[in-house]
Amino acid sequence: MHLENADLEGLNDSEARALLARRPVALLPIGAVEAHGEHLPSGTDNILARRLVTALVERVAGATPLLLLPLLPFGQVWSLADQPGSISLSNETVSRIVVEIGLSLKAKGVTAIAVVNTHYGNVVALRDAQRRLKDEGVTLAIFNYPGAAEPTRAVREKPAAHPAYMHACEIETSYMLHLAPEAVRMEKAVVNYPAFPEDFSELAYRWSEFSASPVLGDATAATADKGRIILDAVLGRMAELLAALYARGREA
Amino acid sequence: MHLENADLEGLNDSEARALLARRPVALLPIGAVEAHGEHLPSGTDNILARRLVTALVERVAGATPLLLLPLLPFGQVWSLADQPGSISLSNETVSRIVVEIGLSLKAKGVTAIAVVNTHYGNVVALRDAQRRLKDEGVTLAIFNYPGAAEPTRAVREKPAAHPAYMHACEIETSYMLHLAPEAVRMEKAVVNYPAFPEDFSELAYRWSEFSASPVLGDATAATADKGRIILDAVLGRMAELLAALYARGREA
Amino acid sequence: MHLENADLEGLNDSEARALLARRPVALLPIGAVEAHGEHLPSGTDNILARRLVTALVERVAGATPLLLLPLLPFGQVWSLADQPGSISLSNETVSRIVVEIGLSLKAKGVTAIAVVNTHYGNVVALRDAQRRLKDEGVTLAIFNYPGAAEPTRAVREKPAAHPAYMHACEIETSYMLHLAPEAVRMEKAVVNYPAFPEDFSELAYRWSEFSASPVLGDATAATADKGRIILDAVLGRMAELLAALYARGREA
Amino acid sequence: MHLENADLEGLNDSEARALLARRPVALLPIGAVEAHGEHLPSGTDNILARRLVTALVERVAGATPLLLLPLLPFGQVWSLADQPGSISLSNETVSRIVVEIGLSLKAKGVTAIAVVNTHYGNVVALRDAQRRLKDEGVTLAIFNYPGAAEPTRAVREKPAAHPAYMHACEIETSYMLHLAPEAVRMEKAVVNYPAFPEDFSELAYRWSEFSASPVLGDATAATADKGRIILDAVLGRMAELLAALYARGREA
Amino acid sequence: MHLENADLEGLNDSEARALLARRPVALLPIGAVEAHGEHLPSGTDNILARRLVTALVERVAGATPLLLLPLLPFGQVWSLADQPGSISLSNETVSRIVVEIGLSLKAKGVTAIAVVNTHYGNVVALRDAQRRLKDEGVTLAIFNYPGAAEPTRAVREKPAAHPAYMHACEIETSYMLHLAPEAVRMEKAVVNYPAFPEDFSELAYRWSEFSASPVLGDATAATADKGRIILDAVLGRMAELLAALYARGREA
Amino acid sequence: MHLENADLEGLNDSEARALLARRPVALLPIGAVEAHGEHLPSGTDNILARRLVTALVERVAGATPLLLLPLLPFGQVWSLADQPGSISLSNETVSRIVVEIGLSLKAKGVTAIAVVNTHYGNVVALRDAQRRLKDEGVTLAIFNYPGAAEPTRAVREKPAAHPAYMHACEIETSYMLHLAPEAVRMEKAVVNYPAFPEDFSELAYRWSEFSASPVLGDATAATADKGRIILDAVLGRMAELLAALYARGREA
Repeated sequence: MHLENADLEGLNDSEARALLARRPVALLPIGAVEAHGEHLPSGTDNILARRLVTALVERVAGATPLLLLPLLPFGQVWSLADQPGSISLSNETVSRIVVEIGLSLKAKGVTAIAVVNTHYGNVVALRDAQRRLKDEGVTLAIFNYPGAAEPTRAVREKPAAHPAYMHACEIETSYMLHLAPEAVRMEKAVVNYPAFPEDFSELAYRWSEFSASPVLGDATAATADKGRIILDAVLGRMAELLAALYARGREA
Repeated sequence: MHLENADLEGLNDSEARALLARRPVALLPIGAVEAHGEHLPSGTDNILARRLVTALVERVAGATPLLLLPLLPFGQVWSLADQPGSISLSNETVSRIVVEIGLSLKAKGVTAIAVVNTHYGNVVALRDAQRRLKDEGVTLAIFNYPGAAEPTRAVREKPAAHPAYMHACEIETSYMLHLAPEAVRMEKAVVNYPAFPEDFSELAYRWSEFSASPVLGDATAATADKGRIILDAVLGRMAELLAALYARGREA
Repeated sequence: MHLENADLEGLNDSEARALLARRPVALLPIGAVEAHGEHLPSGTDNILARRLVTALVERVAGATPLLLLPLLPFGQVWSLADQPGSISLSNETVSRIVVEIGLSLKAKGVTAIAVVNTHYGNVVALRDAQRRLKDEGVTLAIFNYPGAAEPTRAVREKPAAHPAYMHACEIETSYMLHLAPEAVRMEKAVVNYPAFPEDFSELAYRWSEFSASPVLGDATAATADKGRIILDAVLGRMAELLAALYARGREA
Repeated sequence: MHLENADLEGLNDSEARALLARRPVALLPIGAVEAHGEHLPSGTDNILARRLVTALVERVAGATPLLLLPLLPFGQVWSLADQPGSISLSNETVSRIVVEIGLSLKAKGVTAIAVVNTHYGNVVALRDAQRRLKDEGVTLAIFNYPGAAEPTRAVREKPAAHPAYMHACEIETSYMLHLAPEAVRMEKAVVNYPAFPEDFSELAYRWSEFSASPVLGDATAATADKGRIILDAVLGRMAELLAALYARGREA
Repeated sequence: MHLENADLEGLNDSEARALLARRPVALLPIGAVEAHGEHLPSGTDNILARRLVTALVERVAGATPLLLLPLLPFGQVWSLADQPGSISLSNETVSRIVVEIGLSLKAKGVTAIAVVNTHYGNVVALRDAQRRLKDEGVTLAIFNYPGAAEPTRAVREKPAAHPAYMHACEIETSYMLHLAPEAVRMEKAVVNYPAFPEDFSELAYRWSEFSASPVLGDATAATADKGRIILDAVLGRMAELLAALYARGREA
Repeated sequence: MHLENADLEGLNDSEARALLARRPVALLPIGAVEAHGEHLPSGTDNILARRLVTALVERVAGATPLLLLPLLPFGQVWSLADQPGSISLSNETVSRIVVEIGLSLKAKGVTAIAVVNTHYGNVVALRDAQRRLKDEGVTLAIFNYPGAAEPTRAVREKPAAHPAYMHACEIETSYMLHLAPEAVRMEKAVVNYPAFPEDFSELAYRWSEFSASPVLGDATAATADKGRIILDAVLGRMAELLAALYARGREA
């Protein structure tokens, strides 16, 4: 399967109808417009989502019928919402968008959807949409870099700044160096290990309350190779999950 | 101004901050995923919005500071929602998205926004957002091909299928032949003048209730030249409107 | 059919039950309380809706069973909301009212409703209600002076102030001179051709931002005859549409 | 003050402006379309509200400046919603309507509003609107036949069917015989004392679950005199309350 | 039936499953946190609800299968919301809570629920939930001290401060002296007959606008005996109602 | 500080007013009604929240002024919502409750609130409320057993069934053996390591889809000592956090 055979934006009515008849898994990439410091652009999450999903469609090729939707480029941004490069939607709005897309697809017989999400802030809204759609008989899979944990541990050279959050760091910068090197200005990469407030887990903090930079960790340690290694595992895992989703969709 | 100087997705934090300091007019392109028959793809409105806004940024150049946002590729589709290539959001959701983006921008000092809209179905939601944002002190301009009326009358060779609706027709196909000829399959263009129900103005009809094709009118009469002539006027008009918006924003 | 046989407000339970058994078309008049300048009262739209619907019921007589509902006298007013004689509901509220009335009627077996609307500002809310009710199996027809276009062109002597908006002008004042002459003070009628802002189509303007009077056009050119000619055509067209709606309702 | 001097529907812009300058108390009549058995029409509550408010404006005359709004003829009907002559809105919709009217008035400097309500089912929605408007600095008075209790006890000859509910009974029918005798068919009046379920206070019952007629009590005992006596007291009490509201509005 | 056999909080999965199989009536106690003056604590309504429901479960014993839910301790408080001991939820929130609990129970086969409510401010929200749940096939009974009216008249020695409201008065204090004497400080009980505003029935007043104390009436006249007599009647009535609800649930 | 000095339910108006004057930190315990297998009751989370908060108030004593609210015993349950012992609210409802309580407290000058939460399913709703309240100037701290991680690692003898979820397991059962041993039936404790679906992280699963028991892990390894050790650390950590919150509240 070539990208052009899956990309709904490129299909005419006959082609769309024919693809729908195969009960494909729909792919919805979602990112965000969010400040990423000096070495990465505000569109980082969107760039990653676009390129990752392109690579995914290429990899899955003829194996699993896919219906690629255009990127939703606005997401829920809270921690960095006060930064110049950030635009934020509410959780409720992101959730509504995904639910309504899901119901549109269901009306056409597509009941398996995979969201390729590159922005952590979207997860709550996506989980909410996932549960609402499950009640409607639509299976929504959320791909937050699945399969990345193990290769990340293998390639990581510098400590993470926080056990739960990563942002514009060694890892994410490596993704960009691999997928979109032209958008990275490594000479501006910084090392930033902010002192998180001791009650960071209990209270709600905008990051600007404790960190001058949105970078979390050591962006200077990023390499394209690290990005390639992790994302190759991620693509493999996503391909497996899509195959299972497709099978599930055909059983339904 | 080059595209890369305006596109928020490409800016790092310093650049975004510097651009915001100039109180630019934000540009938000919005289209839709919607069936366009056999000769145009489902992404037609999105393709047009992307290319039109790119041309607009190039034209305005250094004259008016712009902040280009990524394309919102999902819109409100009702009349053709039951077609294979259509994905629909509700009016309320489209309106919420635009209002929340507007409030995000306002928090950064940007109070003038121009929506470049290529999908007629979005207008009600955009008007609603426009009024809500006006109450918040944000000026939202809606560009539905402004300035197109007169040159359209000049170049049009075939009658419109309906006084208020145009879709995948002589005119829209001409836009595509000018801006994205590689996406047009003119050999599949058709002439379709459906018999509108006599109470079409009073009732709510899905177009599939009275037309086998989503094309309204004579798509075979489209030419790149017609598209160029109309869109050149549209770009000129949008440039004027942006300059006025910028001036208005600086007064505020 | 006499008015008293159709007016739900005048029926007792047996009569209402008997009328419902005939599966009548419900008629819902809706206007607004809105400033109309010095020569017309704030209740102009309501007066027109009441008289027009009365004339309609008389004309349709025994031909089509009708169920006349009382006038909804509050509508969505935005452009003139800041004027002394205007009271405004939101679009969402107007839409909810109409949907809930529609569902009440559906529960009694009435699935065809015609809204006789005399206030342009209600159209967005009515379209929204129309689509929501269609999903519920209820056909809502919206009558915005159907059939008026042609006779208006024939009788009009003075230019319209705007291609899309008419208000308290030659035409609307003529309607009042025909239907409610006692409410018109022609000695106060004015000629008012405001200079619309050049970006009026793109931005949201309260009319007070560019016009001292809410009159659009030349009210002094109004005559009862013009009103009679146009509204006679309108009544004829509405009667046809009601007959078709009734037939549709019986098929359902 | 004559009716025509208070009725907003009849005022032109100058008159409306002049009246607003006096900071009048706004009067909003609200009724319902609801089944009232065989001897009273479905519009009973609306007829009563219209006539009562007319009498009230006449009585108050020059004493208290009033701004009369048109009747809202749809209300919240639940107990009799399944009857042929009933149309129902939800509580939330009724409340929204009143709140939005209140905010429209507030924007014009009117912060005292009296709702003349003749339909018991509206009370919950009106109380809700009252509290919401109080938070906005608008005083909403709810007139549910104020001052009726004592004269009702004096004139009543037959027992009430229920301590809390009255409907189409000796009392309400007397109101109609006094205010709108032409709409009453006394020959069809009935005596109906349904056996209320013993858990009527604890559960939610549609009245059709325990009564064949919507009449509660003895409608045959109604007389115009009883109506006159009670409503005269009601009008007197409303006049006092309006004077106090006006004074309160001027202090604000 | 012992309390421990009915209290869902104390049951393990097998026990809960076995109880559900008997189609028990669910009991939901609800109170409020609300100022009660100097002699009663803010938790008075909650204490009463807890103890009353405990006594009810003991009384009903093996007669009617019950499923006791934990107390909802927050309610809708408006009149005394500005007092130090009051915490308020909105009507909509209280209604949502009860509806969602009702739907949870319905999914387990429990379609009869009795709310034991000790706070008058909750009634509007409970009635709303009751009607919403009725549409879902769930019977919600609202117990506002059913059966209290007659014995209250019998034991009352001092006049009520208001025909419709009672609060921290002879009666409620008697309930506390009977059910929770350790929480009453009778030495601080007061006599408080505030002068209600003459338009109290028509306007919305916080009680602090006309009364220095939240006590309504003569709290010094309270005795445990009065509480016992009334509540014994209330328990008897509730037991009857539960038996009827259980029978109804089994028929459904 | 004794419990009775902090528990709002036990305070009269003077006491509540005096406590508020000290600007205490409000404590809101929240649990859930949720199936916990055969050895723990459905009220486990509520029992833990009640006892934990009691211990916390005792420990903090005079050090930090506290305002203890009653337990909210209903929470968001999704994964186990289909089990007999589970009652579920939606995220939106839980969030609304907490926001409205927060706004009630803010009106009384309390702007620091700590939620003692024992049910993982509540976290999303609490985070949402936390952010909404932050915009209102109210600091909401969420205590999900803070400080438990390290001592849990120290005492744990059996592996966790899942890295992110714990339920009715070695650890939670130990909490109960320490705080409420009378509610534990250790003879019914089981070992249950379900095979999680391989796409458990990506899809939405009710646990009943892959596990016969709601226990996750080895409940038989629980001991009161383990519970004591962990919860002692938790109480110490919560006391520290409360002191910091109090200081923050006084600065505000």
